[in-house]
Amino acid sequence: MNLIVLQEHDFIGPDLVRLSGRQLEHISQVHKATIGQQLRIGMLNGKIGHGKVVSLSDSHIEIQVELLTPPPEPLPLTLILALPRPKMLKRVIQHLTSLGVKKLILLNSYRVEKSYWQTPWLKEDKLFDQCLLGLEQAVDTQMPEILLRKRFKPFVEDELPDMASQTRKLVAHPVGGEACPVNIDEPTTLAIGPEGGFIDYEVKKLQEAGFKSVHLGPRILRVETALPVLVSRLFPAT
Amino acid sequence: MNLIVLQEHDFIGPDLVRLSGRQLEHISQVHKATIGQQLRIGMLNGKIGHGKVVSLSDSHIEIQVELLTPPPEPLPLTLILALPRPKMLKRVIQHLTSLGVKKLILLNSYRVEKSYWQTPWLKEDKLFDQCLLGLEQAVDTQMPEILLRKRFKPFVEDELPDMASQTRKLVAHPVGGEACPVNIDEPTTLAIGPEGGFIDYEVKKLQEAGFKSVHLGPRILRVETALPVLVSRLFPAT
Repeated sequence: MNLIVLQEHDFIGPDLVRLSGRQLEHISQVHKATIGQQLRIGMLNGKIGHGKVVSLSDSHIEIQVELLTPPPEPLPLTLILALPRPKMLKRVIQHLTSLGVKKLILLNSYRVEKSYWQTPWLKEDKLFDQCLLGLEQAVDTQMPEILLRKRFKPFVEDELPDMASQTRKLVAHPVGGEACPVNIDEPTTLAIGPEGGFIDYEVKKLQEAGFKSVHLGPRILRVETALPVLVSRLFPAT
Repeated sequence: MNLIVLQEHDFIGPDLVRLSGRQLEHISQVHKATIGQQLRIGMLNGKIGHGKVVSLSDSHIEIQVELLTPPPEPLPLTLILALPRPKMLKRVIQHLTSLGVKKLILLNSYRVEKSYWQTPWLKEDKLFDQCLLGLEQAVDTQMPEILLRKRFKPFVEDELPDMASQTRKLVAHPVGGEACPVNIDEPTTLAIGPEGGFIDYEVKKLQEAGFKSVHLGPRILRVETALPVLVSRLFPAT
């Protein structure tokens, strides 16, 4: 928790917040906070600044806050990701949020097992919690938007063209295609398949929607490794 | 397992191997291999090619192999990594191997908990197994070299200067320093601290050894996310 992220309901005065639960626990046990201590504070979807501990008990902590600077610039990226298996999903959401991804579509694909859609980790509050952990890690406040799309074809045919218009369109595919570009500086929509990759039909549908196949070199990476590699390669300076 | 990696003891003839255990299980259950099927095969620390299944039973599989092409080029990188907690260590070793890192030093640091050095995952055979999983994933055959260094100061003072001579020397540090360079094309030694970072003394010692502090932008990443980001940023085309 490199940043304490506040929400509206934490405020008990114009510049005063009261925290309990997980945040209190972290602040007292990891930061070992005492009265008067300064902490790095941010407002969810708002500014970042600092706060001073003004009262502390076993049940809650009160902090006087001053919010000063905007959060880091979002990546100019819309990420379309074949739904990973539940065990990986949690980590992937945290990775992506900490990397600055602000729009994520979790999409079905032939090689996504149907049971993956049943995981409780896809519930709105669970996704929110994982994103919050990513923001706290990255010192960012801007919550990503996550969309779930359980049907590949209607999404790619009906919704994607508008969503991806005016952006560079890439699909990461280990076989064929060109080398993924490096250090581009333009709005991009990037599609990444499941372990084992999109099937040929899916790659064809994405190509029909204007997506260009790109690869990452001779090594085949797990989705979890490929994600930060792709983001860093496209937007190294962001 | 995108590649079946052979070892000397698998050979029962000049071009014939017999496999059992985990590899047999994977080949029969995931590849659903039948007699005559072609598989992608590589020799540990050797060439990559293909193999044809010539016999198959519950206890073993025999494959006629032909090894043709060298493995992918290694990254020109020596990575010095503060020992991660055991839970993360396994994943990190697999990540790094699949990214093409061939020399890794696991180093002590002030913020590394002493107990981390007790984990069975640091035993030679366990590290070998994790690297093997990384190679199988990445379609690579060249086993990384991993060194364990439990004392920071003697390593940095006595061993590191020779090891890092003639290389670009970088220490990833979230605070201060310059932005990490992009797409460099030279042998590099990169040091990465533990969660929470190297302490000032350690950064100073590394700087005295010629290491330059570099950061990855405004967001603070977990070691696990920062690793592929750094590798991809330094060597996007490898």
